[in-house]
Amino acid sequence: MRVEIWSDIACPWCYVGKARFEKALAGFPHRDRVEVVHRSFELDPGRAKGDSAPVLDMLGKKYGLTPQQAQDAENNIGANAGAEGLAYRTEGRDHGNTFDMHRLLHFAREQGRQDELIGLLYRANFADEQSVFEGDERLVELAAEAGLDAAAAREVLADPAAYADDVRADEREAAELGANGVPFYVLDRAFGVSGAQPVEVFAQALGQAWDAKPRLATISGEGEVCGPEGCEVPQAGHRA
Amino acid sequence: MRVEIWSDIACPWCYVGKARFEKALAGFPHRDRVEVVHRSFELDPGRAKGDSAPVLDMLGKKYGLTPQQAQDAENNIGANAGAEGLAYRTEGRDHGNTFDMHRLLHFAREQGRQDELIGLLYRANFADEQSVFEGDERLVELAAEAGLDAAAAREVLADPAAYADDVRADEREAAELGANGVPFYVLDRAFGVSGAQPVEVFAQALGQAWDAKPRLATISGEGEVCGPEGCEVPQAGHRA
Repeated sequence: MRVEIWSDIACPWCYVGKARFEKALAGFPHRDRVEVVHRSFELDPGRAKGDSAPVLDMLGKKYGLTPQQAQDAENNIGANAGAEGLAYRTEGRDHGNTFDMHRLLHFAREQGRQDELIGLLYRANFADEQSVFEGDERLVELAAEAGLDAAAAREVLADPAAYADDVRADEREAAELGANGVPFYVLDRAFGVSGAQPVEVFAQALGQAWDAKPRLATISGEGEVCGPEGCEVPQAGHRA
Repeated sequence: MRVEIWSDIACPWCYVGKARFEKALAGFPHRDRVEVVHRSFELDPGRAKGDSAPVLDMLGKKYGLTPQQAQDAENNIGANAGAEGLAYRTEGRDHGNTFDMHRLLHFAREQGRQDELIGLLYRANFADEQSVFEGDERLVELAAEAGLDAAAAREVLADPAAYADDVRADEREAAELGANGVPFYVLDRAFGVSGAQPVEVFAQALGQAWDAKPRLATISGEGEVCGPEGCEVPQAGHRA
């Protein structure tokens, strides 16, 4: 079974949702048969690379919250994160453009290191003092910590076209699947789960998707197959 | 879009089908958005590791073909392979147990090298003089040629439990999906294509699967999301 998770590194509910989903997965009897793929979604695609700002200021400017409302919102999410055992800095975090992180996550996926990298990016953004919006070298460090080759990661980051189409394609696909917010979970392209649901909702969704039998529309023609009883042999020259 | 291909290295129609599928894919306008995953299927799971035999002898013993019929069958498949531009040795090939190759392919998938490795295994089995059933070192060589770490590949091969469950799970899934022979192609878990179909059938299947809009059964509840308009903030203590 495959679970695709659309999320953004800058999305605190994605960070919380990841912990909840992972708890459900840890208790799922068929967890070894579940493949998780992370898909790109930017909360703030219009923000220029390098244009980062303190989260509390951004909440004020972008959404018109008073400083106290902004701090309350952060404290609230921090409490939810804490309830899942996650560290969360409710003061001093930055907000910025995440496009490069998504490009790097696509590179990491090719290298079999996506899950490691996204976990480190979340931790770095929500729990570490150092900002993830400071430039490429912080991301190169995290890539190396995730088991990627540092030089290769640096090259990906330095080339703005690298994996850019993959990020855009994920975002188009999110829209096609009806997701206008994240986290958004898609199980075997059959079930969609929106939001940082409680662990039991994720558990139920995993069970429901597992039990659902795939129904394929089969396209079969004259293509030859091999089976336990041998290989079909068409008439000589049939294909030539 | 994701295409899963169930196949066996010992399956000549899988080798031919791979070339035909790749031609269709090369002509598919959205080819950059297609991910190919190779799934395990053993034609001869009962055969012990190390128990290899010339293909022509096996065709005689297992299926009761006369030496001439066996040679004709191989020549026929060889002609089909040749029509796709593939080298094919119609004499002197071995047949044996492919379980270890499938385990290695699962390891390669984790490392982002599955497509490279399966291509090399097919070439080695159908076109090279040296047998792929001679022992681990031949497979280690091919793994290294595919870009995998040779020592890591050797470890996987030396541990019979490594990725064994993944191979078995693929095989169970093939049965659940209704595949009793290979190659078997599954597009986005919605369309199934059986056999080494002509290029145009693969092309049609790709187009049909691409155009099909996914319809998700959505499970949504009180899970919080972040969107372009900000993050939902539940009442303080709501989750605690």
